[in-house]
Amino acid sequence: MYANFDVVIRSGDPTVYETYWQENGEVTTMVIPGWQSLSYFSDENNLCWFLEPELGKEIVRVHKVVGNAVTQDRYIVVGTGSTQLYQAALYALSPHDESGPINVVSTAPYYSSYPLITDYLKSGLYRWGGDAKTYKEDGPYIELVTSPNNPDGFLRESVVNSSKGILIHDLAYYWPQYTPITSAADHDVMLFTASKSTGHAGMRIGWALVKDRETARKMIEYIELNTIGVSKDSQLRVAKVLKVVSDSCGNETAKSFFDHSYDAMYERWKLLKQAAKDTKRFSVPDFASQRCNFFGRVFEQQPAFAWFKCGEEIVDCEKFLREEKKILTKSGKHFGDELSYVRISMLDRDTNFNIFLHRISSSSNSTL
Amino acid sequence: MYANFDVVIRSGDPTVYETYWQENGEVTTMVIPGWQSLSYFSDENNLCWFLEPELGKEIVRVHKVVGNAVTQDRYIVVGTGSTQLYQAALYALSPHDESGPINVVSTAPYYSSYPLITDYLKSGLYRWGGDAKTYKEDGPYIELVTSPNNPDGFLRESVVNSSKGILIHDLAYYWPQYTPITSAADHDVMLFTASKSTGHAGMRIGWALVKDRETARKMIEYIELNTIGVSKDSQLRVAKVLKVVSDSCGNETAKSFFDHSYDAMYERWKLLKQAAKDTKRFSVPDFASQRCNFFGRVFEQQPAFAWFKCGEEIVDCEKFLREEKKILTKSGKHFGDELSYVRISMLDRDTNFNIFLHRISSSSNSTL
Repeated sequence: MYANFDVVIRSGDPTVYETYWQENGEVTTMVIPGWQSLSYFSDENNLCWFLEPELGKEIVRVHKVVGNAVTQDRYIVVGTGSTQLYQAALYALSPHDESGPINVVSTAPYYSSYPLITDYLKSGLYRWGGDAKTYKEDGPYIELVTSPNNPDGFLRESVVNSSKGILIHDLAYYWPQYTPITSAADHDVMLFTASKSTGHAGMRIGWALVKDRETARKMIEYIELNTIGVSKDSQLRVAKVLKVVSDSCGNETAKSFFDHSYDAMYERWKLLKQAAKDTKRFSVPDFASQRCNFFGRVFEQQPAFAWFKCGEEIVDCEKFLREEKKILTKSGKHFGDELSYVRISMLDRDTNFNIFLHRISSSSNSTL
Repeated sequence: MYANFDVVIRSGDPTVYETYWQENGEVTTMVIPGWQSLSYFSDENNLCWFLEPELGKEIVRVHKVVGNAVTQDRYIVVGTGSTQLYQAALYALSPHDESGPINVVSTAPYYSSYPLITDYLKSGLYRWGGDAKTYKEDGPYIELVTSPNNPDGFLRESVVNSSKGILIHDLAYYWPQYTPITSAADHDVMLFTASKSTGHAGMRIGWALVKDRETARKMIEYIELNTIGVSKDSQLRVAKVLKVVSDSCGNETAKSFFDHSYDAMYERWKLLKQAAKDTKRFSVPDFASQRCNFFGRVFEQQPAFAWFKCGEEIVDCEKFLREEKKILTKSGKHFGDELSYVRISMLDRDTNFNIFLHRISSSSNSTL
């Protein structure tokens, strides 16, 4: 049935959404004339002069439709993905005096790229400080709160018990296909991205909602220095995609984007949980049910990643899956956690996900 | 005739090209369906996995058509503008051991953003080392060679007399509308950008031609960490624009893109030089004539910026133009040079350029 090849289910490439956009591609098609995108500037009257006004409008609208974040009296900063915005936030929130690099912490397991992105330039402004749970140093620090969390999907709040913490909230996964929307998030700096909301990772568009003007100004300064703004073409495409998503939520006759993507995630989690129960050779987290204000019903989280734990007899889960099952995953060690865990993407194409499911369900070590 | 407002001729926004692209917009129009740009990946078999193959192909073709750079046996790295690629090159070329930050130097007057971009993160890998002409330190260093140079338009070679220099060549302006193409540039790391070649600054696309595989690999690593790749939409648009530019060069019946843009720059430089001669209150550089292999004729450089020097009685040229002429420019001090200089953009829209010309030609201090 399947050839004996490696199935890669390691990255968070959101290709699960391809089917929806292929079926609904017509209204999202974008025609861009050759004379568009000549100037660096999008809106000289906006503090964020490189934000396309249409994108700003659709960001406000989609958050209002979904109810997942407060946008009133917030500055919108657009970035080349939320990765760039994370760095912009570090630049904006670090002290620029001689006090030395500020520590940046997050509770393990944390997104594996965060330590790398924080430290790759050996910045004198900030440095990775490790697991927030065990952080004990005095003085100011930045705590990164990813909720729902990558890789384990749990909802998070800040854990360091100090008044000197500066918080960055990464809310990339706070959308109703992944988690019940229980309230409009209302934090100082909130990061979102098209990659994980609508699935358009290749556009490289993220946005930040920022309370404080000076913080927003410094984030904008970072993006000016780093890339002199953000692709206009992709901003306009994201604006159109968000418009189609918001429109679909008010359409009584067809399935909305979130209905569709909720169902896709529900189906995958049902199969994965069933496989865990049947084989008893691995486990995935249990989530509590909550009422979602957007869907108006109670459900459990169904995260974009599964935090997959091999049975007790297996010390190195990544190695086991790679060698015995030909499944390529990312080891827990990259997320500041144990080797018995791996991160599994729930966002891959159907064929890949199905092969993965087949291989972990099979009792033999053959990969078929 | 003109209202008494400030004319801003300070940034390098390449809006002079709008007319050409409005007239030739039809063939450059891009239709992007909604399901495009979902995956992060463009070409998993390429070292630069986020480079759209079509863009790679058109970059090679345009350099072959124009004859301004060697592309054979070079790695192409795409970036969010050449600004990001400059930082990728610094990351790739700096020692990552404990030897401390490497000095980055360039001959004054240098692009005013280079010191800022080099130092804004207080990196432990590299730091701004100032004017290459006066650089005397031992040990390895990086020299940035911008040719033709921003802001003064002169052709440049490395000046530090040491075997320990690592060179980055910024060739953003090495195109036939600005300077005779005398040979195909053949350096280790060469940076180009759509902003200054075709005028599409808002797309934020640049590319590097890199000789050494390991250098290319580390530049790619930087872009992965910094923005996880580069907008696919803008890459595809630049591919189309470059195709139209290359096609136009083989078209015997219509003016090519470079004919058109050469004429625009020629006309502006003629007017500016005439104004300098007539008023005797300012000067602009004199350039030598050279034979251009692309056009097959001899001409003088006509750079994207004019390095404008006020007459001897004026100490602070920027202040004088701002206060007396209501012309907003960028002072020589930002480029590591004297206050008697300012940088003038030759790439602005006709209306702006004409008001600027009118005001500097007028003997009165009224701005009309």
